[in-house]
Amino acid sequence: MPKDLPETMNEIAKRRGLYWPSYEIYGGQSGYYTYGDLGTKLKRNIENAWRSHFTRHQNILEIEAPIINPEIVFEASGHIANFREYSSECTKCGTSFRADHLIEEKTGLENVEAMGGDAIKRLLAEHGMKCPRCGSPLKEPTLVLTMFKTEIGATGGITGYARPEAAQSMFINFRRGYQHAREKLPFALAQVGKVMRNEISPRRGLTRVREFTIMELELFFDPQYPGCPWLSEVAEEPLSLITETMMEEENNTPIQTTVASALQQNLIITEWQAYFMGVSQRFITHLGVPPERQRFRAHLPAERAHYSAQTYDHEVEIEGWGWTEVAGHAYRTDYDLKAHQDGSAQDMTILREDGTRVVPHVVEPSFGLDRVFLATLMTSYERRKKRNILRLPRNVAPIQAAVFPLVTKDGLPEKAQQVHRLLIDTGLNAQYDDGGSVGRRYARADEAGTPLAVTIDYDTLSDDTVTLRDRDTWTQVRAPISQLAERLKSYLRHEAEFTDLGTPL
Amino acid sequence: MPKDLPETMNEIAKRRGLYWPSYEIYGGQSGYYTYGDLGTKLKRNIENAWRSHFTRHQNILEIEAPIINPEIVFEASGHIANFREYSSECTKCGTSFRADHLIEEKTGLENVEAMGGDAIKRLLAEHGMKCPRCGSPLKEPTLVLTMFKTEIGATGGITGYARPEAAQSMFINFRRGYQHAREKLPFALAQVGKVMRNEISPRRGLTRVREFTIMELELFFDPQYPGCPWLSEVAEEPLSLITETMMEEENNTPIQTTVASALQQNLIITEWQAYFMGVSQRFITHLGVPPERQRFRAHLPAERAHYSAQTYDHEVEIEGWGWTEVAGHAYRTDYDLKAHQDGSAQDMTILREDGTRVVPHVVEPSFGLDRVFLATLMTSYERRKKRNILRLPRNVAPIQAAVFPLVTKDGLPEKAQQVHRLLIDTGLNAQYDDGGSVGRRYARADEAGTPLAVTIDYDTLSDDTVTLRDRDTWTQVRAPISQLAERLKSYLRHEAEFTDLGTPL
Repeated sequence: MPKDLPETMNEIAKRRGLYWPSYEIYGGQSGYYTYGDLGTKLKRNIENAWRSHFTRHQNILEIEAPIINPEIVFEASGHIANFREYSSECTKCGTSFRADHLIEEKTGLENVEAMGGDAIKRLLAEHGMKCPRCGSPLKEPTLVLTMFKTEIGATGGITGYARPEAAQSMFINFRRGYQHAREKLPFALAQVGKVMRNEISPRRGLTRVREFTIMELELFFDPQYPGCPWLSEVAEEPLSLITETMMEEENNTPIQTTVASALQQNLIITEWQAYFMGVSQRFITHLGVPPERQRFRAHLPAERAHYSAQTYDHEVEIEGWGWTEVAGHAYRTDYDLKAHQDGSAQDMTILREDGTRVVPHVVEPSFGLDRVFLATLMTSYERRKKRNILRLPRNVAPIQAAVFPLVTKDGLPEKAQQVHRLLIDTGLNAQYDDGGSVGRRYARADEAGTPLAVTIDYDTLSDDTVTLRDRDTWTQVRAPISQLAERLKSYLRHEAEFTDLGTPL
Repeated sequence: MPKDLPETMNEIAKRRGLYWPSYEIYGGQSGYYTYGDLGTKLKRNIENAWRSHFTRHQNILEIEAPIINPEIVFEASGHIANFREYSSECTKCGTSFRADHLIEEKTGLENVEAMGGDAIKRLLAEHGMKCPRCGSPLKEPTLVLTMFKTEIGATGGITGYARPEAAQSMFINFRRGYQHAREKLPFALAQVGKVMRNEISPRRGLTRVREFTIMELELFFDPQYPGCPWLSEVAEEPLSLITETMMEEENNTPIQTTVASALQQNLIITEWQAYFMGVSQRFITHLGVPPERQRFRAHLPAERAHYSAQTYDHEVEIEGWGWTEVAGHAYRTDYDLKAHQDGSAQDMTILREDGTRVVPHVVEPSFGLDRVFLATLMTSYERRKKRNILRLPRNVAPIQAAVFPLVTKDGLPEKAQQVHRLLIDTGLNAQYDDGGSVGRRYARADEAGTPLAVTIDYDTLSDDTVTLRDRDTWTQVRAPISQLAERLKSYLRHEAEFTDLGTPL
């Protein structure tokens, strides 16, 4: 049986240093992954692409807040009450499982969590669900808090929790943000940082882990002035929507629309959310995922978080996994600021010019960076002539150019190292490789997603030209070293095509 | 009484959005800080400067590993046994204090921790130390573990700890790193990430917090081949050293030497450590700290961590705080890999060409990013004509240029916004400001450390030239918009001086 894509990708990831399960030497610990050099670079490039899409306007302010929060924050936010999942423990081996996932795996049903506790209990009983590990009966499921708990202070005293999302730190710092935004609405606080979720039973590799990076933005606006001044930037962006009504009718064929048209038809209820959904679509497309593999799926009222008036998940179709959530777009109204106003007794209103006061409303786009990373990788995969190729967009590829000497003698390695240093010194991310045959080195570069290979041969020594080879077409051109860095840069910025880089070979 | 620099900087930090104490609306929580937009940008620029100094060679591989580790990792590493501090609890109010810090504050002694437990107990008794909060007697001090403890898995089971440093994840991933480094020594694993230390009683603002970012590198080498091939890059870098011998003689006047000379005199015992100390000096100098405010202080054997054969702290002199550690340089030998070899029963040796096997040795440069950030900020401070100015190096300043319309009418704001967009679109980090008088806007830009201000006036409308104003000299030149982005970039890269940017005014 041929391997499926997730399995193939895990092998490539270990071999090339993209990611691997953490704590391998200690037998592993489920829900934890470690990124290697290639993965760290790709992840950072995606993070920076997010920043350039989502924080390009001046009144979008980035912050960095702590991971551990005192309990009072999550009491006010509602997390202590609501951030819970149904867990079923085995009566014999004691292993715990997420009840909704057990049902999904057995029945093929989707989104069982949204059905609520009674349905989960009924379905477990109806299907006579047993422990997947040892086959023994399961106990009645109970709701458990899925946050990491700790004590702040080495001698104990104050209970703290690791944040399961970054949003609360934006809400509790709303007043500081408002001050730094010159006391004007709309403005946003954005954050890229680690969050932790104490999953009952992690599964599906990097898509459900206990520690991951979130890229989150909270846009604060006055509900009396709900217009988004930047809407025209993305008005014509295409969107595939599965609306709440369609979800209720179990109709899974998306409407093809645009940002502007979805607003006109009231399929998206706020301009701000429509704007960020457009930016979201553009961002994921920028990472190489074609529009036909993207869709926005509305949450049913029962599925929606307690704070949200409208939620769309941005989903990407991944081979071997199906439609996978990479972002959530939620209209959180004034729920969160009011919750912290109540919890802290601090004023969260702002004063309008007419003298009235209002608690701002919030629209939130929230990305799981690790899932965006995986969606980018999995979409880039191509199998060609028995080789693995990652066709990563050239403006996010972790290594931009590989530099090879044709053979490792006669001064070719020295010349190749000079060319490598030249590229590095102009800010390009180039890697030198002289291990094994040139064919093997091309294969390695293809599997690492490196868009260009630069080969130094005997002709280079006499005429200072090199061979450039395109990862995506395997075609080659010949170019002078003197113009190499400049031409590579314009290619990587999508200002030139490969055939513009030199003379065809 | 005039404010001291730390106090002034905290005020600037809150006003401009550099940093502030976390959880303000809930009354605060000591040991936690939040970075604002300006701080996040400056911190990221410093992180990238670290990367360009420390990871520029190809066999230095970056990784990103989880924060929460299963207990077994820290049992093997020795942290469960050793990552402890003496805590004294008040008999009446129950508050806990770090015993060595109490003694330091009362007696003016330095580095009391290094004197050991018996001395700490004796000094507490000798000085009749009382609770600083309520004046009651203190209990006998006890050693407490200063790591955050939690349970991995929502239904409990496995004990986990937040990492207090990133190094262990480099050691436990040594074999994967070796594979990705093409099975050749030397190579390094590097990591930038969050760590947590459950301080007994945090103090001195951002310098001792419970959550911070570490920038750490573990260089693995064969002790039979201890040479560093890159040594010549920094051989002549000046170093101020307080050696172990000088520490024993209580001689605090550093020797002025160089990397090469310190090695020759055996003041630094490995080439790798000398190399990284040279890079360290260069990195901190790059951030604007002059060499005379930097020194490397050796640890006495009693002060040295259990794993280290030689340790130098890189210290920066900060007004109001004195000499403050920003980095540690440790020769960790084969201690850590052997510890995890014992703990995991996995082979940590590598095979030499002659068939023998060896556990590699390790040299580690480790930076506290938040302290480097503070050292950069505090060093940059200048008070001039009753104004606060942050003379941040122009290649790390969070905002590179401010753009102002002279007045907010007659089309000047629109023209200024065009110029602002032009700069943004060429990749510059520019900010538009039209609030208040131009004088107030200059003052705001100075306090935010923005090196250049670009002012659009009535002449701009007719001749497309603008006024550029230098933060450091308050002098002005006139330059054409057509060449603005290019000239600004060469200035920010230190390829031009301010007077090269236009015609003097």
